Amino acid sequence: MPKPSEVGPTDALVRIDRAALCGTDLHAYDQSMPVDPGTIMGHEFIGTIVEVGSAVQQFEPGDKVTGACIVSCGTCALCRRGKSGNCPGMRVYGLGVAFGDLPGVHAEYAVTPFADVTLRKINNEKKAEDVLFVGDILTTGYEAVRRSYQPGDAVAIVGAGPVGLCATMSAVALGAGTVAVIDRVPERLAEAERFGAIAINAAETDPQDAVFDLTGWRGADVVVDAVGHPSALETAIRVASAGASINIPGVYIQESLELPIGELWFKGISVKGGGCNLLRYMDEVMALVEAGRLNPSSMISHRMGLSEAEKAYEMFAKREAMKIVFDPTK
Amino acid sequence: MPKPSEVGPTDALVRIDRAALCGTDLHAYDQSMPVDPGTIMGHEFIGTIVEVGSAVQQFEPGDKVTGACIVSCGTCALCRRGKSGNCPGMRVYGLGVAFGDLPGVHAEYAVTPFADVTLRKINNEKKAEDVLFVGDILTTGYEAVRRSYQPGDAVAIVGAGPVGLCATMSAVALGAGTVAVIDRVPERLAEAERFGAIAINAAETDPQDAVFDLTGWRGADVVVDAVGHPSALETAIRVASAGASINIPGVYIQESLELPIGELWFKGISVKGGGCNLLRYMDEVMALVEAGRLNPSSMISHRMGLSEAEKAYEMFAKREAMKIVFDPTK
Amino acid sequence: MPKPSEVGPTDALVRIDRAALCGTDLHAYDQSMPVDPGTIMGHEFIGTIVEVGSAVQQFEPGDKVTGACIVSCGTCALCRRGKSGNCPGMRVYGLGVAFGDLPGVHAEYAVTPFADVTLRKINNEKKAEDVLFVGDILTTGYEAVRRSYQPGDAVAIVGAGPVGLCATMSAVALGAGTVAVIDRVPERLAEAERFGAIAINAAETDPQDAVFDLTGWRGADVVVDAVGHPSALETAIRVASAGASINIPGVYIQESLELPIGELWFKGISVKGGGCNLLRYMDEVMALVEAGRLNPSSMISHRMGLSEAEKAYEMFAKREAMKIVFDPTK
Amino acid sequence: MPKPSEVGPTDALVRIDRAALCGTDLHAYDQSMPVDPGTIMGHEFIGTIVEVGSAVQQFEPGDKVTGACIVSCGTCALCRRGKSGNCPGMRVYGLGVAFGDLPGVHAEYAVTPFADVTLRKINNEKKAEDVLFVGDILTTGYEAVRRSYQPGDAVAIVGAGPVGLCATMSAVALGAGTVAVIDRVPERLAEAERFGAIAINAAETDPQDAVFDLTGWRGADVVVDAVGHPSALETAIRVASAGASINIPGVYIQESLELPIGELWFKGISVKGGGCNLLRYMDEVMALVEAGRLNPSSMISHRMGLSEAEKAYEMFAKREAMKIVFDPTK
Repeated sequence: MPKPSEVGPTDALVRIDRAALCGTDLHAYDQSMPVDPGTIMGHEFIGTIVEVGSAVQQFEPGDKVTGACIVSCGTCALCRRGKSGNCPGMRVYGLGVAFGDLPGVHAEYAVTPFADVTLRKINNEKKAEDVLFVGDILTTGYEAVRRSYQPGDAVAIVGAGPVGLCATMSAVALGAGTVAVIDRVPERLAEAERFGAIAINAAETDPQDAVFDLTGWRGADVVVDAVGHPSALETAIRVASAGASINIPGVYIQESLELPIGELWFKGISVKGGGCNLLRYMDEVMALVEAGRLNPSSMISHRMGLSEAEKAYEMFAKREAMKIVFDPTK
Repeated sequence: MPKPSEVGPTDALVRIDRAALCGTDLHAYDQSMPVDPGTIMGHEFIGTIVEVGSAVQQFEPGDKVTGACIVSCGTCALCRRGKSGNCPGMRVYGLGVAFGDLPGVHAEYAVTPFADVTLRKINNEKKAEDVLFVGDILTTGYEAVRRSYQPGDAVAIVGAGPVGLCATMSAVALGAGTVAVIDRVPERLAEAERFGAIAINAAETDPQDAVFDLTGWRGADVVVDAVGHPSALETAIRVASAGASINIPGVYIQESLELPIGELWFKGISVKGGGCNLLRYMDEVMALVEAGRLNPSSMISHRMGLSEAEKAYEMFAKREAMKIVFDPTK
Repeated sequence: MPKPSEVGPTDALVRIDRAALCGTDLHAYDQSMPVDPGTIMGHEFIGTIVEVGSAVQQFEPGDKVTGACIVSCGTCALCRRGKSGNCPGMRVYGLGVAFGDLPGVHAEYAVTPFADVTLRKINNEKKAEDVLFVGDILTTGYEAVRRSYQPGDAVAIVGAGPVGLCATMSAVALGAGTVAVIDRVPERLAEAERFGAIAINAAETDPQDAVFDLTGWRGADVVVDAVGHPSALETAIRVASAGASINIPGVYIQESLELPIGELWFKGISVKGGGCNLLRYMDEVMALVEAGRLNPSSMISHRMGLSEAEKAYEMFAKREAMKIVFDPTK
Repeated sequence: MPKPSEVGPTDALVRIDRAALCGTDLHAYDQSMPVDPGTIMGHEFIGTIVEVGSAVQQFEPGDKVTGACIVSCGTCALCRRGKSGNCPGMRVYGLGVAFGDLPGVHAEYAVTPFADVTLRKINNEKKAEDVLFVGDILTTGYEAVRRSYQPGDAVAIVGAGPVGLCATMSAVALGAGTVAVIDRVPERLAEAERFGAIAINAAETDPQDAVFDLTGWRGADVVVDAVGHPSALETAIRVASAGASINIPGVYIQESLELPIGELWFKGISVKGGGCNLLRYMDEVMALVEAGRLNPSSMISHRMGLSEAEKAYEMFAKREAMKIVFDPTK
């Protein structure tokens, strides 16, 4: 790939030091989310600033950085209200024309727009591999707990995939009380336990019984549906306490869904989905990563050269790898 | 009715000075919510303390008071978390066995349980008729705005019945920015305008166009569905901004409802229903009423003696009265 | 004055439509805060965009705008935390080299840096004269209440000068309960009453007695010291409730002050001063102004041509005018 | 001691299972805070309910409990606002007439007033020794961080005594970013490190340099003065960031103190002291203790029989013990 030559006034040119492969990339890879051939993919990265535009204030060449995978402007009415995930000009790296035609980070260099707004400096380089997750799934899982919890709350997480595990470690780091994770795959549940959660295997136990038992029959105050499937939402509602918040980082693509409105109303439960508001929460997550309180890099299963990208996508598509990190120099 | 003679240690005996007739009473009156014959009805009141139980700390005979229509204990895990509307021991005055068999306030005297927790002193007697609404619909409408707004937010209220109007005056008093009320009845819309709102007649204009026009094409940040009907919720979703909160004080009694989950997810909208948490918000509402910032008594259409109760229920059932207040001495 | 010709990538060139004279300008005028001769003064304005820099996203020529008088970057660590008043690169229009050498707005044109961050569009032109106050004292008074109040709180404001009156109208608009204003000048107290407050003339009554009497002997939950003098702070402490917040928008320039730490500790009172975080609160204030809930323009006593600036400064210095607004075309 | 025989309607009679010796007890012991001879001392306890008054709802004989050392009513205006530490009827166990003449818990039995309000059930008996700290210093240290922090904040704690260490473990559990503890005693600093903090020995390093170095030259967002001495407050101000909150759980008994008001104003720092609002935060702390996220029992240095109380007070007065726990059966 040629090094990009055009750097606008608020852009930064970044040399990619490491990039990760995310589940969303697979949608592009298998064309379930169609992207033009030749699109540079990838949206999770850490790198080094090479050049900054004339209006960039916060960065200079040599700075180690990561960036929000969703590029929001930072100054529109929604960004100013903390809702950067709904910024009308929002673009995503490496997902083609539908997401703003922004070249991805599975490359040696990338141009990062609105650098002052979307990039964050890495101060503690020992945590660089953990920082890789800040601009995407870690903050997604974090927000799903953070936006409606109080310290000491009982938190239940439905689904122990990467986003669910990010929510799990976030709940523990944020001072939740009981943190229960519900899944059917023993390996994933073991990983959740390593992050400090209580594992509930839905293949063996009724999740509602288990959660109510753990919470003095109150249920979970905050529930995360990290799956995005009607059966997960049904479980989420069943384990929720009266007055609970159910947060849904898992993407719902179906148009409509039959919901038990009577039960939701009677129990006073709130339900909220949506893309991550990275600009709102990325600083908190960065601070927790650099202080060693969030350690997502333990989810990395493979480290490969970018020249092996094709093989990596294949492995990832076959679920032979949990999380793959690329070194673009190899 | 005989004066109740048994006053438990945390009870107070209250002489009812005024009581109001509420829409919920009609459900008991027309037996759509069955209550035993002979049940004393009514749950909105102001009165004077006549006697207090041995453990009551905050009140003494002669105090003018009002009380929460939902009697919650104040000390269980849910009450302590501000979710008194879901208190497991919750009872409601005058709604029969299903709601804890607590005699109502359409009487000369009533025993009020958990007096220290559920009663509030009236300091400004000039506002007594406004205070009548604090223990029920005013705080219900207030919470529907209060629990998720920021000052300056655009608020849209679907339905200009009593709860919708209470939400309207609350939004204005709380420092919302634009407050838009959607209904089809010109008289109700005129009342909403008197409370400071912009009226949108859904029979004449598309509510979404109107709300987006008023908000610089952002939509409403907080939406109240004060109706409790699928078509109201559909309107609520249409007028909502990305990242909005939809609050539903209107009761949903159907078991399930088809919701546009894809749109809700994509726009990051939260949806929350449920009964009012009176203990959490009643002090704020009381302060605003006594300071003259909430004036619900303008909704009173008739003042009658309690001896005319039968006639009053009939008028109310026929919608010939907006709000009727009883004087138990007549 | 020549029209400025250099417009950087994030700047906007604004034609000044109206500008106001602020107490701070007097410090420059009487050289108590020394500025170089020839400095263009003034920092409160509304205007029309004439030209935008290449990186400006939110504005285009013709837009009617106002702007924060404190120009903060919007992207440093403190700005991102909502503390734009302490932005390390902070500059103020028209206050000379000590405040970043940024030419003021008592001119026909001004260059506004970080336009996307510091400017706000005026949507409701009927409110233009009210908007004049948004970028400075109105938001200063607003924040002094907003940052620590709950709806229904009793608010006491010490000092009914322009900032105190802005705090007063903000408290009423935000849904405070009792709002009491303490001063010794009957005209100022009358103005406070017009904004919905209860006036306490400290020349006639003991303010503590009066505030405790108004609040059921609890004291004020939020107290604003809008004076910035030890005697005002002493009054503020006396009228405060246990657990109250005292906010001090009035500037304290003395190095140290003897405070009654024992009483502050025992009553659990918090004390906070500091410059206004305009970027954090300006959107809320703008929405309330445009909805007609904040009406500061009633404080304007004189409207003059900019050619009469010398006379205006003189009148203002002699306290013959409450608030003077300039028309730069005259 | 005879078993108390009078149990009022809202009281519970508790058999004390374990009680701890607190620094405050020493003030009574050495008569710096005078108590009558014969006063039963002690206010930190866990126990078993033996009998409940007629109006108690939440407890029954056999329940394992702890209780707030400050007995607040739970229903006055201040308690309802979360300010139970300033409840006008507030009493403290074992501190004599000045604190409401409530017999202490260094005894076999104690009567606990307002049981529903002040007691909390122990669900996880394995954590009983950690729960011992919930009703007093743990929640005191916790509130000093909790009331003004955001997750990811840099927290600096001045003083690594028991309250400082409780604040330290709370900051870590609550998801603070950098947590720095400043003291001059190496053993205390080592204990702070065991709780996850970075130790700063003020005898060797300048605390301001150290904290600014750890926070990218921003300073600490939240500062706890856990000492209650002017020199500690001076350090607290020096290590604080612009816009920081300084919380002072350490008691200030002097009447007045010279404070650098100019610096506090310019940096926008808030200062707040006061007794702990146990009712507001005790549930959160209890949940974190029972989930194993707060482990204060590691501070226990001695376990003794209550018959050895005299020896224990002596050791504690000579600072030969960090924290002593009594078994009343021995």
